[in-house]
Amino acid sequence: MNPEIQVSETRKHYIQIIVENRFGVLSRVAGLFSARGFNIDSLSVAPGLDPSVSQMTIETQGDDHVVEQIIKQLNKLIDVIKVVNLSEFSFLTRETLLIRVNTNTRPGDRDEAFRIVEIFRARIIDSSPTTYTIEVTGDEDKIEAILNFLKPLGIKEVIRTGKVAVAREDQKLGTSKSVSRLTDGDMSYHR
Amino acid sequence: MNPEIQVSETRKHYIQIIVENRFGVLSRVAGLFSARGFNIDSLSVAPGLDPSVSQMTIETQGDDHVVEQIIKQLNKLIDVIKVVNLSEFSFLTRETLLIRVNTNTRPGDRDEAFRIVEIFRARIIDSSPTTYTIEVTGDEDKIEAILNFLKPLGIKEVIRTGKVAVAREDQKLGTSKSVSRLTDGDMSYHR
Repeated sequence: MNPEIQVSETRKHYIQIIVENRFGVLSRVAGLFSARGFNIDSLSVAPGLDPSVSQMTIETQGDDHVVEQIIKQLNKLIDVIKVVNLSEFSFLTRETLLIRVNTNTRPGDRDEAFRIVEIFRARIIDSSPTTYTIEVTGDEDKIEAILNFLKPLGIKEVIRTGKVAVAREDQKLGTSKSVSRLTDGDMSYHR
Repeated sequence: MNPEIQVSETRKHYIQIIVENRFGVLSRVAGLFSARGFNIDSLSVAPGLDPSVSQMTIETQGDDHVVEQIIKQLNKLIDVIKVVNLSEFSFLTRETLLIRVNTNTRPGDRDEAFRIVEIFRARIIDSSPTTYTIEVTGDEDKIEAILNFLKPLGIKEVIRTGKVAVAREDQKLGTSKSVSRLTDGDMSYHR
């Protein structure tokens, strides 16, 4: 493919929006996406440090050009204070899952669940004679991996937060003393 | 106050909604809340294990009676598969924050940030000569506590997922072998 005719490209976008904490903001923002036929893959809204504002992180997939148009329209909404498309930066994402797994289908299942929790530096936050409830936080690769490890035990329930993303420091300051991926399994680069 | 005349009570609600993963569902659900003057404190939407459905967790505050009405209306929406009001159970909540803090305002700030991360079993996921980006997952008390500890250093940015909640095992099965709060700072009861 000739990159010069490839005007725009469909890919994953993480959009951060700071809004006034008012009634109806969320449905107006979500409405903008659905009106353009954009599906929201995940979304988080939570209060900011200043409780009069809320912050949203929206994960969506689509054409760069269309995302740019949505961002322009978001900026026109009266309650929107700031919009950042993190896809323009190098960034880190995190997501938290609460996973309820069977631990007593076969002998040894409970030990196996416990070992998987250790491997992924996850945490057991609740337990019954036949289940564990596991809390795990990580990027997409880590989450996918632990789900694959747990699947043979029988996953009863998964509750996940939407993804949040933060721009990496190296580009903010032009320097970075990142912890190496070798010493910390939780460090990873996107893009 | 006479509890018998106190027909309903204003309190925090965690509502879990399973919906078909279709365009516009999110704005319809959010619209129901704002139409009733209910503010959504936090909201998470993410794909379920079956990608044709999405799951939402909504944190809101209000009168039990009005929440009940909203739930009835949610159940009438065509794309809504299931609604659970977790406030009827004992439950655990979790939230993840990405916190960027200054580490070089005063000598020793970087050590102090590092110690706080250890105390809260948080993780440093990015670093520059003057900042750390910290990932922490926990319930409301833990999150409030780490923010208070970090405040003197200077918090530059906080990005948070909405809260997710899961019903405790003891009531699901009538028994529980919960890890004691004494041995694991992450275990806690609500209600």
